[in-house]
Amino acid sequence: MVQIIDQRRLPHEYVIHDLVTWRDGAVAISDMLVRGAPLIGATAAWSLYLAAIESRDSGESAALVAHAAKEIGATRPTAVNLQWALDRVMNVVHGAVGNADLVALLEKEARDICTEDIEISRGIGRHGLALIEAIAQKKPGETVNVLTHCNAGSLATVNWGTATAPIYFAHQKGIDVHVWVDETRPRNQGSQLTAWELAENGVPHTLIVDNAGGHLMQHGLVDIVITGTDRTTRSGDVANKIGTYLKALAAFDNQVPFYVALPSTTIDWAISDGLSEIPIEERDPDEVTHIYGRVGDQMCKVQTVASDTGISNFAFDVTPARLVTGLITECGVCPASEEGLAGLFPVRAKIALR
Amino acid sequence: MVQIIDQRRLPHEYVIHDLVTWRDGAVAISDMLVRGAPLIGATAAWSLYLAAIESRDSGESAALVAHAAKEIGATRPTAVNLQWALDRVMNVVHGAVGNADLVALLEKEARDICTEDIEISRGIGRHGLALIEAIAQKKPGETVNVLTHCNAGSLATVNWGTATAPIYFAHQKGIDVHVWVDETRPRNQGSQLTAWELAENGVPHTLIVDNAGGHLMQHGLVDIVITGTDRTTRSGDVANKIGTYLKALAAFDNQVPFYVALPSTTIDWAISDGLSEIPIEERDPDEVTHIYGRVGDQMCKVQTVASDTGISNFAFDVTPARLVTGLITECGVCPASEEGLAGLFPVRAKIALR
Repeated sequence: MVQIIDQRRLPHEYVIHDLVTWRDGAVAISDMLVRGAPLIGATAAWSLYLAAIESRDSGESAALVAHAAKEIGATRPTAVNLQWALDRVMNVVHGAVGNADLVALLEKEARDICTEDIEISRGIGRHGLALIEAIAQKKPGETVNVLTHCNAGSLATVNWGTATAPIYFAHQKGIDVHVWVDETRPRNQGSQLTAWELAENGVPHTLIVDNAGGHLMQHGLVDIVITGTDRTTRSGDVANKIGTYLKALAAFDNQVPFYVALPSTTIDWAISDGLSEIPIEERDPDEVTHIYGRVGDQMCKVQTVASDTGISNFAFDVTPARLVTGLITECGVCPASEEGLAGLFPVRAKIALR
Repeated sequence: MVQIIDQRRLPHEYVIHDLVTWRDGAVAISDMLVRGAPLIGATAAWSLYLAAIESRDSGESAALVAHAAKEIGATRPTAVNLQWALDRVMNVVHGAVGNADLVALLEKEARDICTEDIEISRGIGRHGLALIEAIAQKKPGETVNVLTHCNAGSLATVNWGTATAPIYFAHQKGIDVHVWVDETRPRNQGSQLTAWELAENGVPHTLIVDNAGGHLMQHGLVDIVITGTDRTTRSGDVANKIGTYLKALAAFDNQVPFYVALPSTTIDWAISDGLSEIPIEERDPDEVTHIYGRVGDQMCKVQTVASDTGISNFAFDVTPARLVTGLITECGVCPASEEGLAGLFPVRAKIALR
């Protein structure tokens, strides 16, 4: 059995949810009990481990694992980590010799993916910390204000987060850091997840609506923007939660540095033009029309929109590389460009560009 | 007695609210039962009429009306119409001869303000229609997609609206027009008011979260943006609902024309730099943390955020004139600049700039 936090219930309730079958894992990803590119990858890997158990216990062939990988791969189209994790586990499956213990092999692989993810977050934290430190040194005695969109936090990864890792590292080092948390409609990952985990970790923060960031930047109240990403092209275009592009435009217009934090696993070396090549998921209108909240001690879901209202609900947008000051990866910070990424990842770039 | 629609209850309930005293009018403005710059002005004028009745019936002096004007003027700092309407009515008060019937005079003045407001909306509709017609002619047989933010609709004025007037005129003329309606957090004027009134008038529309507009523009799905404004400087800087600036940036980045519709009464000739000279109202954190909605047949207000979360809630932002393609006024369309506005309103400009 695998256990996850049901993130749909935060911040109101902290509920641990059991994944017993690989289908539970697929549902956890599609229904967003888990979300965030790295955590989706980790959950997918653990789901294939569950499929291996089912395959063994039912006497079915390992083909069940391949079937599970295909089904899980279809749950969320935008995050590149999902397919990356599935491919990595399936390579183990395909490489296993006849009588190998597939369950043990996949458990090890899923565990490795989680361990590596924590190391990746630490790397991002270390490199991003240097950026925050440089800002702090320029305004001694003053607060460093970071704006973030959505949740690229410890809840989106196995630990530390991507966009939040530099913030946590800075806070631990005693830097006076404060975070503007975008609410992040329609699913409110900012108000419900990022605000929750920053509070859990004692990091000062203020919640704002998604509309507010431009105004704050116009008035010098933001020193740096750091977001995560679900997929980055080899040229540095960045797909992230819908609305990221608007914050990048505002940052550019106000000379506020705009950084994107990413594990190198979210780089899609096969594509260059994010706008035309990254599929953008459309999600259930219900995400826009209904919201879950607390009334006294009761939780309830209210409808905020007239029933016959037509809805469009794109989940991501693409921020062109020209608006991105830099990419913070586990291997260092680089410009958002093919040259920048190739400089940090020469081997992968060579394979991709040959 | 004066009657208003309690806009806080839409789209769920259509409730007519009675204003019996001028203080009811002040509360209706401060608590946003009415909102929208022109409607705030009209409500303020009718509130002074109520004050004149109270003054007469109680045997108090007309000083009560002046006191009411001062109190009402303090309810909302950003909208310039509020002070404009109060000043206009107070000019009538000050000009009244000893035994004049103040109640009758103020009733006439309030009625004139409403009649003129309808005429202003018609003028904006006529001039804005030409812009939509020009787009329709360039793409025959295709839908013209307009994006709007907040509610600058018939609910924000006495009738027709400002930003919506060109849309209603185009729809009535048989142009295939479709509106992307920004939800407009935190008060959701888009999802609750604009969507409601477009539906009432049979205009095709789709609700989107505030984060989505940039993505739609990147993909050619928006032909024109039209918003309202609460205050425009003589140089064409535009204060409007928080988030307008982000849409203007996205429009500029994607060569989508960005127009602001305004009655000339919202031009503040006394100021030039919107960013430094327009006071931006901060409102109750409760607007961000709670939302009103329907559960079955019940209405309830849910808390969507953890109780100890800090909130910042600026209500407006300023879009610099450089991002505004043009201003649609009752007297015509002009560039968002001192020269543009002076061209349309030479007398007022001369007075302001002397």
